[in-house]
Amino acid sequence: MNVIQNLIDAFSLLPGIGKKTAQRLSYHILERGKNSGLKLAEALKEAISTVKYCDRCHNLCNSDLCDICRDKTRNQKLLCIVETPADVMAIEQTASYHGLYFVLMGRLCPLDGIGPKEIGIDALRALFLEETSVISEVVIATNSTVESEITANYINNVIKDLKPNITITRLAHGIPIGSELEYLDKNTLTCALNARRDFNEKIAE
Amino acid sequence: MNVIQNLIDAFSLLPGIGKKTAQRLSYHILERGKNSGLKLAEALKEAISTVKYCDRCHNLCNSDLCDICRDKTRNQKLLCIVETPADVMAIEQTASYHGLYFVLMGRLCPLDGIGPKEIGIDALRALFLEETSVISEVVIATNSTVESEITANYINNVIKDLKPNITITRLAHGIPIGSELEYLDKNTLTCALNARRDFNEKIAE
Repeated sequence: MNVIQNLIDAFSLLPGIGKKTAQRLSYHILERGKNSGLKLAEALKEAISTVKYCDRCHNLCNSDLCDICRDKTRNQKLLCIVETPADVMAIEQTASYHGLYFVLMGRLCPLDGIGPKEIGIDALRALFLEETSVISEVVIATNSTVESEITANYINNVIKDLKPNITITRLAHGIPIGSELEYLDKNTLTCALNARRDFNEKIAE
Repeated sequence: MNVIQNLIDAFSLLPGIGKKTAQRLSYHILERGKNSGLKLAEALKEAISTVKYCDRCHNLCNSDLCDICRDKTRNQKLLCIVETPADVMAIEQTASYHGLYFVLMGRLCPLDGIGPKEIGIDALRALFLEETSVISEVVIATNSTVESEITANYINNVIKDLKPNITITRLAHGIPIGSELEYLDKNTLTCALNARRDFNEKIAE
């Protein structure tokens, strides 16, 4: 059973995939899904060997510059700062943001040895100092945890020092769409109350 | 983003892995888990190219006869009939069964065109007709669904016709260990009541 156990172990290395799921996936592939298994093996090898980081925004892509950085039809005045490439994909899927991105590849965490250098602050600075730079608004879209908040504040200071005239915004906090007040945590609810808006106010695109 | 999307799509082909999980896995591999990704790709290719069915019991293995069929220290008098190779693994993990197996590779389902031939009844018959056969008890360990019950009955008849002296048993039905009566369905509870046992009876190994 060694080869099968090997496959199960390899699946178990992935996040969120326990022993039982790894077994189920392995047996599925060996019994009914050899094609999808081979497809996955190929896709893994190809992606791992070709994918790298965009020189400019640090997003994952398979050329020197990612599709978004090369796309001149995107709003060059807007820059959205996120923590991970997965966040770029999440925002892209909303189809309601048309500016550029900068991916930090993490958040500040001095205990783990992750400082400004590790999250690419130098590259971020360089972006603002480009002669062709027309950035007029930065949207800081980090996560909503303590470390991410600290990172957001740090970036806010860096940009303010560098270009005092740039508008710096952040994502709105509040009640998730479709949720019920009864089950919301009190911090979110407090935040939603404090940031309440005029009912007739139109939300700008 | 094509290579990345390819990888996400390949993960989505697996059972129980939706689009979001596929994204999470892909980004994990590309950002932090290139090694585990390559390991998975290799394990997939190797398992898919080498794994086949045991000539005797139809379990998955990587030689003509599986480890269990070749192991002469196992109890050759006991034969456990299960539906899938995953069931063999589940029973092996209990470490409380030391006989041989026969894997049906499915259950009878006339609507889907799965008859006795498809689940390998001929190979099962051959097993009993081997000159060296010493099987004295068959444990039918099919699942607990309607089709599996029909399959179990069919196999029971086949064996009774072939070797009337063989004991045919089935797995006990009843209350799962650790469960609460309050939340059990009434069929299971009825079954557990009807099959109640002497409190002082010792369960044979």
